[in-house]
Amino acid sequence: MLSKLSITAILVATGSLISAQTFQRLGTCPSLGCILPPDEQDFLPGQQFDIRFEVHAPKNGSEAFNNGVPDEKFTATITKDHDRKGGKAKSIADFFKLKGSAEPKVEKWTFSWYEDLFAQDAKTPSVVNVASKVYRRVALYEPGTYTVTLRYYGGKTTTAKWTVRELATRKKAKNVIFFIGDGMTTNMITAARLLAHKTINGKYQSLMQLDKFPVLGHQMTHSIDSFITDSANSASALYSGHKSTVNAMGVYADSSPDPFDDPKVETIIELLVRIWGSAWGAVSTAFIADATPIALTAHTRLRSQYGPLIDQALNGVTNYSWPGHGGPDAYFGGGAEQFLPGSGSYQGKDYYAEFAKKGYSVSLNKTSLLKADNKKKALGIFCKANLPVWLDRNIFPENSAKLKNDPAGGSGAATDLPGLKDMTLKAIDVLHARGGKKGFFLMSEAASIDKQMHSLDYERALGDLLELDDTVRATVAKLKSLGILEETLIVVSADHGHGFDVFGSSDTKYMAAQPDDRSKRDAVGVYQNSGLSQYTVEQPGISYNTGPNFPVNWDPRYVIAAGAGANPDHREQYGVDKTGPRTPAATLAGKGSSDFYVNPTDETKGFVVNGTVPVSQSQGVHSLTDVPVYAMGPCQERFGGTYENIDLFYKMAECLGLAHGSNKTIRG
Amino acid sequence: MLSKLSITAILVATGSLISAQTFQRLGTCPSLGCILPPDEQDFLPGQQFDIRFEVHAPKNGSEAFNNGVPDEKFTATITKDHDRKGGKAKSIADFFKLKGSAEPKVEKWTFSWYEDLFAQDAKTPSVVNVASKVYRRVALYEPGTYTVTLRYYGGKTTTAKWTVRELATRKKAKNVIFFIGDGMTTNMITAARLLAHKTINGKYQSLMQLDKFPVLGHQMTHSIDSFITDSANSASALYSGHKSTVNAMGVYADSSPDPFDDPKVETIIELLVRIWGSAWGAVSTAFIADATPIALTAHTRLRSQYGPLIDQALNGVTNYSWPGHGGPDAYFGGGAEQFLPGSGSYQGKDYYAEFAKKGYSVSLNKTSLLKADNKKKALGIFCKANLPVWLDRNIFPENSAKLKNDPAGGSGAATDLPGLKDMTLKAIDVLHARGGKKGFFLMSEAASIDKQMHSLDYERALGDLLELDDTVRATVAKLKSLGILEETLIVVSADHGHGFDVFGSSDTKYMAAQPDDRSKRDAVGVYQNSGLSQYTVEQPGISYNTGPNFPVNWDPRYVIAAGAGANPDHREQYGVDKTGPRTPAATLAGKGSSDFYVNPTDETKGFVVNGTVPVSQSQGVHSLTDVPVYAMGPCQERFGGTYENIDLFYKMAECLGLAHGSNKTIRG
Repeated sequence: MLSKLSITAILVATGSLISAQTFQRLGTCPSLGCILPPDEQDFLPGQQFDIRFEVHAPKNGSEAFNNGVPDEKFTATITKDHDRKGGKAKSIADFFKLKGSAEPKVEKWTFSWYEDLFAQDAKTPSVVNVASKVYRRVALYEPGTYTVTLRYYGGKTTTAKWTVRELATRKKAKNVIFFIGDGMTTNMITAARLLAHKTINGKYQSLMQLDKFPVLGHQMTHSIDSFITDSANSASALYSGHKSTVNAMGVYADSSPDPFDDPKVETIIELLVRIWGSAWGAVSTAFIADATPIALTAHTRLRSQYGPLIDQALNGVTNYSWPGHGGPDAYFGGGAEQFLPGSGSYQGKDYYAEFAKKGYSVSLNKTSLLKADNKKKALGIFCKANLPVWLDRNIFPENSAKLKNDPAGGSGAATDLPGLKDMTLKAIDVLHARGGKKGFFLMSEAASIDKQMHSLDYERALGDLLELDDTVRATVAKLKSLGILEETLIVVSADHGHGFDVFGSSDTKYMAAQPDDRSKRDAVGVYQNSGLSQYTVEQPGISYNTGPNFPVNWDPRYVIAAGAGANPDHREQYGVDKTGPRTPAATLAGKGSSDFYVNPTDETKGFVVNGTVPVSQSQGVHSLTDVPVYAMGPCQERFGGTYENIDLFYKMAECLGLAHGSNKTIRG
Repeated sequence: MLSKLSITAILVATGSLISAQTFQRLGTCPSLGCILPPDEQDFLPGQQFDIRFEVHAPKNGSEAFNNGVPDEKFTATITKDHDRKGGKAKSIADFFKLKGSAEPKVEKWTFSWYEDLFAQDAKTPSVVNVASKVYRRVALYEPGTYTVTLRYYGGKTTTAKWTVRELATRKKAKNVIFFIGDGMTTNMITAARLLAHKTINGKYQSLMQLDKFPVLGHQMTHSIDSFITDSANSASALYSGHKSTVNAMGVYADSSPDPFDDPKVETIIELLVRIWGSAWGAVSTAFIADATPIALTAHTRLRSQYGPLIDQALNGVTNYSWPGHGGPDAYFGGGAEQFLPGSGSYQGKDYYAEFAKKGYSVSLNKTSLLKADNKKKALGIFCKANLPVWLDRNIFPENSAKLKNDPAGGSGAATDLPGLKDMTLKAIDVLHARGGKKGFFLMSEAASIDKQMHSLDYERALGDLLELDDTVRATVAKLKSLGILEETLIVVSADHGHGFDVFGSSDTKYMAAQPDDRSKRDAVGVYQNSGLSQYTVEQPGISYNTGPNFPVNWDPRYVIAAGAGANPDHREQYGVDKTGPRTPAATLAGKGSSDFYVNPTDETKGFVVNGTVPVSQSQGVHSLTDVPVYAMGPCQERFGGTYENIDLFYKMAECLGLAHGSNKTIRG
């Protein structure tokens, strides 16, 4: 027991700063002086970024200081570490040779936060006054470590160690294709294999394309200030080499009210266009303003600023000096709301027209997409919101037909929808034609692995995972046929996980026949009673015509039994939901309520599983697990082993020769 | 919907054979004639094995045939595939040149099974009469594929394709150390890292030893006849290159009543001793007769035959002609029940004495273990049952002190217990001394990762995972100090997973203060509210003195919130259970009942989570997920990518030069 060890104090007696690890005044800023980018951050040589300093003066609460008056006379210096003993610390303006060594003006604002759940319940926020300065668009060109020091309140200091990685100026891969299975874990890949690939006496007769990749790695997905990430800041880490905060992309989140003034970091797209003038594209089965596709170009603390972020994707950052990216060469997905003129679009403008004005072909369906001129920049928006999932496009199309998601703004359903494979292969055609010898970067996202895992709809999530695998398979074949396979790095990974796993099978017939929840659970077979996958057993007369790498039967009597650990109240009957994506939890009090219970109309033949997440959550949530990385092509050997999500950026950027010691444009 | 596609039959109208995928007459035998080893099996050249044929005659049920009279005049042939068109199929006895080409006698027996859960409820078994022959101790020496054909009932045939892998006669690694984290997944490794290693603004300041391994792979763990494995047949796959059936080890499970007559396959230990005369050892924190350690030498369909299996570990298989293994050179773990004379030991004998008779030092505590002569064979049994877990040995030792597990058979607690690191480092000393230039093979198992995951005791599972990582770290240092690091292949993997993941944090103080289950769930923080790990935050005056690679605080206010998806009814209050390993579910009807509910005395400050597994299961169950493989040393490059668990055997065996084209002993 504790008392036997060298313990002289009891945990609960320690200060609130430690409790504040979970409820934080500002992530990355445990003291009252904040440096953004903070301590222990890495940079690509030449990568452009902003620097913000904040000095906090809490007015009340456990950290109350200086009567809530922040020090406006703070100073900051930076030193390259080998210079330190020489005492050559320079002011930020001097070091970066900012125009006339001008100091930016001090900004001031106030924000509040809750120190813990008790404070939140009691509605007793802690209020903080802030003084701040921001230095825009600087870069570090020389590899090594740097020390940034902020001095404030007389004698207080905060320091940050920054590391600039090695130079890498030679392009080893002409092209990079980066596939992201949003929320995809090893557990899900294992389950997808079980559904789509047949075993005979324990030996798989075919494999996933992912299984055939020569190099496997794991990446850690935690964000900078919480160990569970969302898709915004994880995408940002993958694209910029800088971890961020939940809901933030392409910036370090500051405490100011403006979601667009946070200090920015340059993304791989901005680097690639600035240095090599390459073509780039994004494909997603989500709405295209969703975090994973939009983070390629987005700089904001608030991912929900969909309209402005589409403008950033087309026009770059316009409110501050910042490198442009020329707009995507291929941009395919859902999310017509941000393109149709109206409340969803930036300044109410018609973004189909805005893109067209800049020379884009605009496709609103698959037929049009496939016909689009490969030599022109191409926009394809195929529906409102997210694309219907693979299962509803291919097996249960009547579910897609009843939606009101016409991308042209009509009242009916989007018809003639492309899938991830169609969009990805077309994007490769466009990017190959437009990139030419300058090469290209394509990000292709299977978004609904995550979205369907959130709603515990495992079959729909796994269907989209299989679509991703099929797309990767077709991509390898396409690159081969174009003669560019050997010069293209293909990376497949994820941005975070969900705690999903299969633990047995379930006899749907038996479960439906049982009278109560406890006896229904007897339908679940574990260990030897899990048996073999019946999704791969051919049924006389049943064919979905979806090819060899998908289940031959989506609706067998014995289905997988799976769970996520993190879920709202819901029922589990297991097996595919034929009438559309499931909604596991519902409020009884109607819209606006956030008190979720079992949805009375969902999986009514199953048994109740009560929730493990706050009752305000209607869905499952992301999880901690490292996610897999598969690599093939130039530089593949760098992707083995275990590393941080930001390392994927550095590995890709180094392979693309983006780490330069000066800011000159190459564009050779 | 289905009706729109080319569907001419409804699933439920199809035959029972397909439903029988889950409830199986005999796994690996979908028709009435069975070949063991069955279709699609791989072999190491020269690996010894038995062959069994069975012909089934179901008396009743959906497969009733021939009035329940099995064909006793079945015949079987084998052909090497390039010989096939020449028609050189030979009888089994001829092909393998069995003594005087003698045919074995026909054996007969009867077994019964249930075709589904309805039949089980109705107590209407299907009864099967069997005729069988078994051919003992044969081997295939020439790489390539072979076809085995069984002919029965006049015109029926069953065929099996067998593949003999390539020769590999040169020893590339002198030694192999194979660490198994039982039940360990990538998800758990991620969580263990979070608890033990500190981040500053998203960058880990130290890493797991596993994170530093240069090569990463994934292995698929499914068994031969069910997609969820147990630790017996998965261990067997890892050690023999042959997948098997739940509860079986070193055999293909037949349908006979005798658990020791099933057709055997040679294990890596038997091969290594037969070919090179190397030393070998096993270390486990489980009782040493448990599946993972015992499967190195066990040949049985029934893992619960603990006493006889300890005899097999010492004396080899004695009831059939079979290569010996000379007994382990180092054998350390728990499980005194199989060594103390009495009902737990084979024939009631004293196995401490049996081992001592064969020249073993016998240690019953850590002090004695550390003093044991490295030149002698060494047995170390430190308690009854499993070793207390790391957390109860190091942080809450009063929990270990109250056990009645004296390995000498006394009524008190085992004291002076070694941990996995002590046992492993000592085993290396003994094996290095005894193996000499012939090298050694050591298997070291962290068993309670699995055992504590079963009972949803996440902190205890992660503590033992960190102990494994610390042991691997110490092993690398030890091998270096012995000068044998470069010639030793280290592989770390698992045998299967549990569907565990962390999805947020929980405020233990807030949860304890809430009055009901729904409000308790508000204590769980997800996404940004998960915050940072507090297990790594130093508390003034608290030190566990367990070193830099373990948590500095096991009992913070904000703890991880995790779940498994597969669980019995239980409560979750999160955080460490200080009074000992938890028992999440209990029967209300008392002993003997198998109707499990929330244990009323477990985690009483938490909220109820009802179960997802049959109510007869008191614990969580294994899951489907592929598990990670970490490799370092000679042949490490073979361990990247995705492959089957049996491939780990082939990779290790090839690296050890065990694939020979003849049966001569090398022992150079």
